[in-house]
Amino acid sequence: MKAGFVLEHSVGEARTGTVTTARGSFATPCFMPVGTRGAVRHLDSSDLEALGVEVVLANTYHLMLRPGADMVARLGGIHRFADWSGQVLTDSGGYQIYSLNPQVDDEGAVFKSVYDGSQCRLTPEDAVVQQALIGADITMVLDVCPSAVAETQVLREAVHRTAAWAQRGRNAFLTHESAPQRQCQFGIVQGGTDVALRRESAELTVDVGFDGYAVGGLSVGEERPQMLPALEAATAVLPTDSPRYFMGLGDPLGIVESVARGIDMFDCVLPSRLGRHGTVLSDGGRYNLSAARYAGSDEPLDETFPDSPAGRWSRGYLRHLLAVREPTAARLVTLHNLAWLLRFMDRVRAAVRSSDDSFAELRSCVAETWS
Amino acid sequence: MKAGFVLEHSVGEARTGTVTTARGSFATPCFMPVGTRGAVRHLDSSDLEALGVEVVLANTYHLMLRPGADMVARLGGIHRFADWSGQVLTDSGGYQIYSLNPQVDDEGAVFKSVYDGSQCRLTPEDAVVQQALIGADITMVLDVCPSAVAETQVLREAVHRTAAWAQRGRNAFLTHESAPQRQCQFGIVQGGTDVALRRESAELTVDVGFDGYAVGGLSVGEERPQMLPALEAATAVLPTDSPRYFMGLGDPLGIVESVARGIDMFDCVLPSRLGRHGTVLSDGGRYNLSAARYAGSDEPLDETFPDSPAGRWSRGYLRHLLAVREPTAARLVTLHNLAWLLRFMDRVRAAVRSSDDSFAELRSCVAETWS
Repeated sequence: MKAGFVLEHSVGEARTGTVTTARGSFATPCFMPVGTRGAVRHLDSSDLEALGVEVVLANTYHLMLRPGADMVARLGGIHRFADWSGQVLTDSGGYQIYSLNPQVDDEGAVFKSVYDGSQCRLTPEDAVVQQALIGADITMVLDVCPSAVAETQVLREAVHRTAAWAQRGRNAFLTHESAPQRQCQFGIVQGGTDVALRRESAELTVDVGFDGYAVGGLSVGEERPQMLPALEAATAVLPTDSPRYFMGLGDPLGIVESVARGIDMFDCVLPSRLGRHGTVLSDGGRYNLSAARYAGSDEPLDETFPDSPAGRWSRGYLRHLLAVREPTAARLVTLHNLAWLLRFMDRVRAAVRSSDDSFAELRSCVAETWS
Repeated sequence: MKAGFVLEHSVGEARTGTVTTARGSFATPCFMPVGTRGAVRHLDSSDLEALGVEVVLANTYHLMLRPGADMVARLGGIHRFADWSGQVLTDSGGYQIYSLNPQVDDEGAVFKSVYDGSQCRLTPEDAVVQQALIGADITMVLDVCPSAVAETQVLREAVHRTAAWAQRGRNAFLTHESAPQRQCQFGIVQGGTDVALRRESAELTVDVGFDGYAVGGLSVGEERPQMLPALEAATAVLPTDSPRYFMGLGDPLGIVESVARGIDMFDCVLPSRLGRHGTVLSDGGRYNLSAARYAGSDEPLDETFPDSPAGRWSRGYLRHLLAVREPTAARLVTLHNLAWLLRFMDRVRAAVRSSDDSFAELRSCVAETWS
């Protein structure tokens, strides 16, 4: 089914809205935690419910290798598998595969499994079939994802192959026996940091026509002054009545600056990865809980966030658990960071809804704290 | 303060009752989860509350090295440190230290820190001071804990040194500035599997006079036919109006057979250690979730335990998370195992309260499933 997007408020390009899939609706701009192998690290679906998460990511590449997309289907699909009744978005596996130096030709990609070294193959059609078996609400088309700072010729080839695969992936999706009724499908814009290629890629993707549009291959190490013009070149072309998703971005400054350019959806492993290594997101910025000065601290992780799921424990206690490698620490700081970022998204939505001034104030406040 | 023990029902030597400390009361026979470094692995105090845990263990040896007993005190003591308002029992550190080949003389034990190799020292008096800083409700006296199957001469020396240390530890406790008002102190019976030495050790410990009595140095690898007579030799001497604690035992058969011999309190790392390696406790016995036959199973971990905290997920899902080393799996199976064992203790108490026949039936049922 077509993913509906209803615009509610806007301030310049920034907007709040509601995305509707076969499963229901969720509010945007939103942050989607990453549950690569069917669970966010250290968390379960009851934790996500308590956090108020509306959409969670899962990874096609990992699930197709372990336990296998057919096994996820046999166990009732990803929602029953993880006992999660919220929305699920699966990426296509492209990004993971391109980190494995695959052999890519016009047909698809051949790569080795990280689990047992066996040879695997993924085509745009396979990506549709695998994601239909997994059963996510939002699926992604298979794209070609080179380094953001690759040479122009490499980026151009990637854009054109991505466009060809987009058409094949879209055809496979629309002719699949059950996917169009149960799922929606997003296209992916590539083009690295090359503004002209980003525009061309966006046009080619919109020409195919998807239920929503993602910007891929950014926030992969390039500087923000390279990233934002490439993002703008893409969003300028994308239709305003479809959801727009920035893949793999999750830092507060990146989020507000992308919202200011019309992005609705974000995902990132950052809050959980930072969390399990002891880096805390707080209203004052991020800090490393391992620092010696927190050893005797009776303060909570963020005193301006008393409702944090880790709010009842002191920095001193959590730092101790981190220092002696108790997994409880990774869990609690992960919960805090995700709750903090979800609350941050609440503030972003509230600011856009409220007035021009509110969002401008939020942007400058975030820039001050997070630059 | 003296730990009160009020006997409620008994069937032969088996008994239910209530133990009262300065913090409040808890029902026995009880199982106490082990939070070695201030947290049960993968869990926090809100999890223990949800499980209905009444008493949790913490480890003096580990906490005195990291973060240091003085740091625990500075952060408000173990209850505020871990934000846990239930009971805490700290062991004396003796058992951990004896696994490190310490130099032991009449004065105390000298050993190396597992954290940084630095040389540490613990005397019976130090153990009282460290535990007073940590602030547990129930503290343990420092004992000498040789192998359960050590030679008789080694066991005899350990019994006599344990008795001498018991008197010193008791004196230190009773003359401590705050411990007697806030804490109670248990003595420890040693003697390996030698029945005569067990009896002598129990007599010597009772002569000193403690608020409760523990049986140490059993369930450390010896066979059950060696263990139970040694246990009986100790419990025959221990006063019936004080709580009795079997240190380090937590298997269902061991628990019912020890309850049948008058034991009130148990602790063990087993349910959490088994859990994080994928071994599940269930009414049908224990099984390894890693087995291939569970890969496609849509059943919960124990279908006779629908209220398990992991009851909403399938074996297939949890086995997958275990196979791909997601820490969520360790957490959920740990929660299940602890909940299962706590429910098992509910059944033990209910059987003792109910009638002679109920407890006998439970014993034979447990023997059949868990032998």
